Amino acid sequence: MKALIIGAAGMVGRKLTERLANQPVLAGQALDALMLVDVIEPQAPQGADFAVETRALDLSEPEAATALLEERPDIIFHLAAIVSGESEADFEKGYRINLDGTRYLFEAIRQAHGADGYCPRVVFTSSIAVFGTPFPEAIGDEFLNAPLTSYGTQKAIGELLLADYSRRGFFDGIGIRLPTIAIRPGAPNKAASGFFSSIIREPLAGQEAILPVEESVRHWFASPRAAVGFLLHAAEVDTTSLGARRSLSMPGVSVTIAEEIEALRRAAGDKAVALIRREPDPTIMKIVAGWPQNFDPQRAIGLGFTADRDFDEIVRIHIEDELS
Amino acid sequence: MKALIIGAAGMVGRKLTERLANQPVLAGQALDALMLVDVIEPQAPQGADFAVETRALDLSEPEAATALLEERPDIIFHLAAIVSGESEADFEKGYRINLDGTRYLFEAIRQAHGADGYCPRVVFTSSIAVFGTPFPEAIGDEFLNAPLTSYGTQKAIGELLLADYSRRGFFDGIGIRLPTIAIRPGAPNKAASGFFSSIIREPLAGQEAILPVEESVRHWFASPRAAVGFLLHAAEVDTTSLGARRSLSMPGVSVTIAEEIEALRRAAGDKAVALIRREPDPTIMKIVAGWPQNFDPQRAIGLGFTADRDFDEIVRIHIEDELS
Repeated sequence: MKALIIGAAGMVGRKLTERLANQPVLAGQALDALMLVDVIEPQAPQGADFAVETRALDLSEPEAATALLEERPDIIFHLAAIVSGESEADFEKGYRINLDGTRYLFEAIRQAHGADGYCPRVVFTSSIAVFGTPFPEAIGDEFLNAPLTSYGTQKAIGELLLADYSRRGFFDGIGIRLPTIAIRPGAPNKAASGFFSSIIREPLAGQEAILPVEESVRHWFASPRAAVGFLLHAAEVDTTSLGARRSLSMPGVSVTIAEEIEALRRAAGDKAVALIRREPDPTIMKIVAGWPQNFDPQRAIGLGFTADRDFDEIVRIHIEDELS
Repeated sequence: MKALIIGAAGMVGRKLTERLANQPVLAGQALDALMLVDVIEPQAPQGADFAVETRALDLSEPEAATALLEERPDIIFHLAAIVSGESEADFEKGYRINLDGTRYLFEAIRQAHGADGYCPRVVFTSSIAVFGTPFPEAIGDEFLNAPLTSYGTQKAIGELLLADYSRRGFFDGIGIRLPTIAIRPGAPNKAASGFFSSIIREPLAGQEAILPVEESVRHWFASPRAAVGFLLHAAEVDTTSLGARRSLSMPGVSVTIAEEIEALRRAAGDKAVALIRREPDPTIMKIVAGWPQNFDPQRAIGLGFTADRDFDEIVRIHIEDELS
C-alpha cells in the first residue's frame, strides 16, 4: 500500500504522518511507502518501518501534480490549503492554491487514469466553512453549501469537482468536512478561529489568552486525534454507499465558549481560567457570527466516523498528546 | 443603459434580444447600446432603436472577455454554455467553456473593478441541473446542490463564484436557475431534455414525435417568454435582499408527460396527440430519472419572479410566438 499526503507539513498532515509511523496500516493493509509533500519540504517521521520520500512542491504550478503520481499511490490525502484568514486577505492566492491547485491535482489523476486505468482513493479535506448563515438549529446532510468566505467557496468547489471526477470514474473520492480542530498545538496559524484553541492551550501552559467573542458563542469541534481518525476511516470506508454525494460533514462536539471554559476549569482549575482575558474584537465577532454552530451529521455517523465524546475529552487529548 | 449578452446566438439569447428590440427598457431605463456576443456571430435584431454591436468570440480564451468590457456595460447577461448532453460527452470542452469561460469573464470584471471601480449587474443563467437525486417532494431554497452531470457541476461552481465575487464587491451578481424551457422552437439542441418540447412542437406542426420515457415522468418547465421575463426581472431586482445567496431557483410549472399530452389535446385535438410515438429509450430514461420534478421556489416568488400559469399557457405561448 502506497500513500501520498499533500499538505503534509501542516498540523493535521503531521499528525497523520506520526500516526502512520506508529501504526503503518492503511485501509487494512500494510503501508509500504509514503510520500510527503508540501510547499515547504515536510519532515520525515522518526523510525518509520516503510519507505518515506519528502518533497517540496507548489501544487498551483500546472504540471506539478503529475510528478507525484509516478509511483501511482493507492491513497492520496489532499490536505493542502491556504487557510480562511489568508484566503480572505489574498483573493488571488486563495484561488490559485485552493481552487487551481486542487483542480490540477484532479486533472493529473484523470490523465493518469486515461493512460493506464489508475484509480486511487482520494481523501479531500473540506471544511464546515462551506456553510453560511442563516442556519437551521443543526445543519443536516441536505443543507445547502452557501459559504461566506472565499476559503469556503474554494472548498465547496473542490467538493463539486471531487464528486464529478468520482462519478466519471477518474478516481474514488471522498470529501470530509472537518469541524474546527481544537486544541491546535503550537503557534496560531492565520485562521480567524485560532482563539477557540488558544483560550485552552495558553492557560494550560500558564500563559494569558485573549477571548475576542462572547461566551455564548457556540461552535463545532474535533480534536486533532479525531481528525486523524476521520482521515484513516475515509481511506478505507466503502464509497459505494456514498452515491454521488461524496462529501460528508464529520461528527463533532458542539459547545459554547462558556462550556469550553468550564472544561478547562475541570482540567486545570480556576487559576487557569483566570488567565483568559476578555478583549471583544468586533471584526472577529462578525466573522464568527457567520459560522456553523451545530450539526446533525447522520450520514457520517452511519458510515462509522466517530467524534470525541465531549469537550473534556478534547482537552484531555491535548494534555496527553502535547503536554506529557 | 448599456447591456452585454454573452451567448446571444442561443435560443434564450435570441428571445431576449428580440424582446429588447421591441421594448428597449432595462432596469427601468432606456437601453442605449447592446453588444451581442457568441462563439458564432449573433444576428443583430431588426429595427432596434439603439446601437447594436455583434461579435464572435470564444469566452474560453483567457483574455477574450476583457475586450467585451471596454464600453463598461451596466448589465451583463451571461447565458453562454455547452449544454448538458455535450458537456457529458466531452468532459474537457464542458469544463473549458462552462467553468473556465465563466471564471475568465468574472476575472475580467474584477480587473476592471480594480482599475476604475466598475461594478456591473451580472445575470448568470444557472440550471436546475445543479440538483441531484434523492429529492424531497418539492425542492426548497435550502436544498443542497448535488449535481449528477458535469454540466450541473459546472453551473453549481459558477453559482459559487458568482456569490463570492459579489460578496467581495467586484460585481453585483444574480444567478437564476432556469427550469427546462418548453416549448423550444426550431431544431433540437444536444440537451437530453429535447423530447419534452418535441412531443408538443412536432405534433403542432403535423409531424410525428418520439416519446422515449414513461408518461408518469414529472418535470419542471417554463416557456421561453417566462425565461426572458426572469432575465429582465433579474436585471432590475434589488439584490440587497438576496444576502450572500445570489442564486435562485426560478418558479415554473410541474407537470407529468401525461399532463403535457392532455394540454396538447386541448390545444390541437386527438389527431395531434396521435402523432406521438412511444419508443422507450433506457439511456434517456435513466438520465431523466435523476432530474428534478418539482420545486418550492419561495425566495424567487417573494422577489417577484413569475412563472407561466400552467402548461396550457406554455403551449399557447408557443403557438402565439412561433406558429402565427
